[in-house]
Amino acid sequence: MRLSRYFLPVLKETPAEAQIASHRLMLRAGMIKQNAAGIYSWLPLGFKVLKRIEQIVNEEQQRAGHIPMLMPTIQPADLWRESGRYDAYGPEMLRIRDRHDRDMLFGPTNEEMITDIFRSYVSSYKDLPLTLYHIQWKFRDEMRPRFGVMRGREFYMKDGYNFDLTKEDALHAYNRHLVSYLRTYERMGLKAIPMRADGGPIGGDYTHEFLVLADTGESEVFYDSAVTDLSFGDRQIDYDDVEQCAGILDEFTSRYARTDETHDADEFAKVPEDRRRTARGIEVGQIFYFGTKYSDAMGATVQGPDGKPVPVHMGSHGIGVSRLLGAIIEASHDDNGIIWPEGVTPFHCGIVNLKQGDADADKACEDLYNALTAKGFEPLYDDRKERAGAKFATMDLIGLPWRITVGPRGLKNGVVELTSRRTGESEELAPDVALSRIVEIYGKA
Amino acid sequence: MRLSRYFLPVLKETPAEAQIASHRLMLRAGMIKQNAAGIYSWLPLGFKVLKRIEQIVNEEQQRAGHIPMLMPTIQPADLWRESGRYDAYGPEMLRIRDRHDRDMLFGPTNEEMITDIFRSYVSSYKDLPLTLYHIQWKFRDEMRPRFGVMRGREFYMKDGYNFDLTKEDALHAYNRHLVSYLRTYERMGLKAIPMRADGGPIGGDYTHEFLVLADTGESEVFYDSAVTDLSFGDRQIDYDDVEQCAGILDEFTSRYARTDETHDADEFAKVPEDRRRTARGIEVGQIFYFGTKYSDAMGATVQGPDGKPVPVHMGSHGIGVSRLLGAIIEASHDDNGIIWPEGVTPFHCGIVNLKQGDADADKACEDLYNALTAKGFEPLYDDRKERAGAKFATMDLIGLPWRITVGPRGLKNGVVELTSRRTGESEELAPDVALSRIVEIYGKA
Repeated sequence: MRLSRYFLPVLKETPAEAQIASHRLMLRAGMIKQNAAGIYSWLPLGFKVLKRIEQIVNEEQQRAGHIPMLMPTIQPADLWRESGRYDAYGPEMLRIRDRHDRDMLFGPTNEEMITDIFRSYVSSYKDLPLTLYHIQWKFRDEMRPRFGVMRGREFYMKDGYNFDLTKEDALHAYNRHLVSYLRTYERMGLKAIPMRADGGPIGGDYTHEFLVLADTGESEVFYDSAVTDLSFGDRQIDYDDVEQCAGILDEFTSRYARTDETHDADEFAKVPEDRRRTARGIEVGQIFYFGTKYSDAMGATVQGPDGKPVPVHMGSHGIGVSRLLGAIIEASHDDNGIIWPEGVTPFHCGIVNLKQGDADADKACEDLYNALTAKGFEPLYDDRKERAGAKFATMDLIGLPWRITVGPRGLKNGVVELTSRRTGESEELAPDVALSRIVEIYGKA
Repeated sequence: MRLSRYFLPVLKETPAEAQIASHRLMLRAGMIKQNAAGIYSWLPLGFKVLKRIEQIVNEEQQRAGHIPMLMPTIQPADLWRESGRYDAYGPEMLRIRDRHDRDMLFGPTNEEMITDIFRSYVSSYKDLPLTLYHIQWKFRDEMRPRFGVMRGREFYMKDGYNFDLTKEDALHAYNRHLVSYLRTYERMGLKAIPMRADGGPIGGDYTHEFLVLADTGESEVFYDSAVTDLSFGDRQIDYDDVEQCAGILDEFTSRYARTDETHDADEFAKVPEDRRRTARGIEVGQIFYFGTKYSDAMGATVQGPDGKPVPVHMGSHGIGVSRLLGAIIEASHDDNGIIWPEGVTPFHCGIVNLKQGDADADKACEDLYNALTAKGFEPLYDDRKERAGAKFATMDLIGLPWRITVGPRGLKNGVVELTSRRTGESEELAPDVALSRIVEIYGKA
């Protein structure tokens, strides 16, 4: 993309309403615009990151064998009356009457609807196991929306639902989700720690939240520092392998790690003192096993191997897709702006032309731009007639992990400059070497 | 995808509520499920086609230089009060009160919001031209939703908005959209004819609707049969080329083609009698130029070259993404089911194993499946223990354009069968030749 043809409305002023770094930086970098309290438009740059995150979530869900579909945003109230949650949900549910005076609502989650879909079509244990998921806009009418996309009202979320014949099978689905979530977050450059959680309004005996450590997190967390040393890495997973998935769950959850909701001071005291940590965390996902709660209430049964009807065991599993942008920025920024991890960056690298209009500089930039594009990369080329300082400031603010700086002086010596946004370190390289370096970086990433 | 692990709930019975073929076939093929009147879930197969269509729309919009972003579904009423449409829109607007008693609505379209975004950031003619678009769920509270996704309440639509300094520039944007829409529909295997249209509630001096001819269309259309001979083909387009875009508009719109809303019997009479046609059509898109209607009402001005503020010239341009599934099926089906054009098929080909459990047949199917997957195709392998007849019926119903049938008898002669869904013709080929044929078909498609 050439910046002269893009829509990137960066702000010089820091918006007064933004209290935390991610909110401030997303506004300043022209990623989002507030349309109403807790409701945002995703401007082109923000939308691009949202899509990258969505793609990673999709790839990892499908790798785990989960099947994508899509439920609508507007739901009939009757489904929620069946489960008893229509009255229980409270004022966070956005309730709507249509022109025929039917009670509808903007879905805050989808347990009822997916259970209704399941019971409409599936009648035999032979069609299990089954895990369906969707990524859809949801609405929770928060009393006080704040922190930008971190606690908005309209938000984008992946929610998946497993249907299994037995508790044992459903716990494998639970473990499979935990494993796939670990992979998902790590691909985004995040360390998200699974912590024992509270069931909350969805209910659930087994549940873990995934928390990203950040000073601005809404939850106080307590953990054994050994959990932060764990890394998923590039291990090969067979998602049908019950033992392997259970082993990974053990590895990542056997040490103490809880939010304040489930914190147990006595248990925490057993952690060696030098490894006891208290910090703040941002919740970016949660997995639940809740047994037959919804299948009992809504009559979602299958015929078991013995011919008798049995209610299916279910779980639901969520990743806060839009919220992740905030979490990633909270975990990765500095005074000059955002620092995108390679896995989610909106553009793979920036190209800064120090002297737009200089024939050599223009040509070198175009050549790099075309070569990168031909190799399947998306560079952002700042081809505006602006001072170098302004171009650098924009690139730093929007946080592309790599920048190639091209100027007439360097070109006379046959070099351009490749700069890491994270370390600030620069190298002078021949243009084709800079190109190979980008290929190498993302080949690894 | 292996069918044994997929969720494809095909129905044997024809649902009573479905009056037209596309609705009937989408229900029977397990593509959609109605959750409330005019509100549908997209089951995995339907969702896959929806995403293919969305991707084509995205690719063609970006090819034309239009920039993707995303606006929320819920909008504040105040924006619509500025344009005067809050009261004018009528009962099709889904009006909502949030917990703080603020008037909100589920967006049926986005002229107001995009104009607000534009005026918040753009102040100079130097930032023009600009075309932003999004693909988002919308809601129109239809009195009588019907025909499945063709006239639903919650629907998925691409809407794009151009901002230009002059009428002349805006008309180029109009032409550019027309050209990109022609390409878009043709890639989906559709012949969509641009017809002179009526501005309707959005207003507009220049507007064309794109109609797909089908007996079940809601509009009566009148046209010169010469328009159906036109084809976009693989011509190279430079979307910045004003002459070229205007030339294509002329080529595709100079002959008589109108809906009943704008039909002019006297003009129609001038068409040579043997080329006069009356038929029915399904609207799958519309383009508008409406000048400064919204920029005047909402104060969206830029500083012109002479330093004086001028209201921008705008247009809006829509493609009914979810509705397109219905239109494509109306245009392409037979008594046995859907016939997907190669451009939008959910899976590139089906593999039918005539004797699941036979070692040779199983191995040949697995080999084909793996070879196709390795080449970047998505096959659907029917690996269930079902009768051959049931497997063929499912494949015909869901409409994959190509089917490879594998059985022990053929394998003894070293062949599998490649069958075209459209013509029903089969060829016996060695498995590797069948594979090359699939590559060749989609290489061309």
